[in-house]
Amino acid sequence: MLADLLQTIVENSPGAKGAILMGFDGIAVMQHVAAGYEDTDIESLAMEYSFRFIDLRKAAEALDMGDMTDITIKAERGTVIVRVLSEEYFVALLLGQAGHFGKSRWMLRSNAQALSSQLT
Amino acid sequence: MLADLLQTIVENSPGAKGAILMGFDGIAVMQHVAAGYEDTDIESLAMEYSFRFIDLRKAAEALDMGDMTDITIKAERGTVIVRVLSEEYFVALLLGQAGHFGKSRWMLRSNAQALSSQLT
Repeated sequence: MLADLLQTIVENSPGAKGAILMGFDGIAVMQHVAAGYEDTDIESLAMEYSFRFIDLRKAAEALDMGDMTDITIKAERGTVIVRVLSEEYFVALLLGQAGHFGKSRWMLRSNAQALSSQLT
Repeated sequence: MLADLLQTIVENSPGAKGAILMGFDGIAVMQHVAAGYEDTDIESLAMEYSFRFIDLRKAAEALDMGDMTDITIKAERGTVIVRVLSEEYFVALLLGQAGHFGKSRWMLRSNAQALSSQLT
């Protein structure tokens, strides 16, 4: 189940506020927000980024880097980790702190296949 | 010296093809390309991304994440690691493989202050 997978990702990612599965067209499929972060508008955040991700993907293709697979954006008060699932979809994880995110990135990767298989 | 710093970053980053210091306006300050990768057009690559980085920075600010500090873009045949140095400048490192990039990211970070101080 998509909801369970997103919950697993969030609960096993230190500092995670939430995760969202979204189309590159900015339409959310499903999301899970961590306990205590119910007011986090992860959908607006992912929408804000989704069109920019398309631009980044086009740039990677234009530069002969092949298909884009991952994006990480770190800022003072948050980190967004993105795993591209397919031509249409990506999963994004929002971390509240800008600290270490190795485990979180691994959680996204290790669940990417399961998420993708639910989308077909 | 900027050139020496970029060379240090490239030579100590496994799989690095080159590094470039660029303004967010797409104008390159200086670059260093690794031996054997002289035909890598890292300036065009960074230019292609620079305007998109401005969009990502604006999004982070709009989402109350504060100043954007780092961007990583992984694709099938390359990884771009970016460290924001100031309002005006960033340094980007191009890795030829999409493997581990922890040391490379650390090289960018540990040299960021020295690079910035050369820009003022």
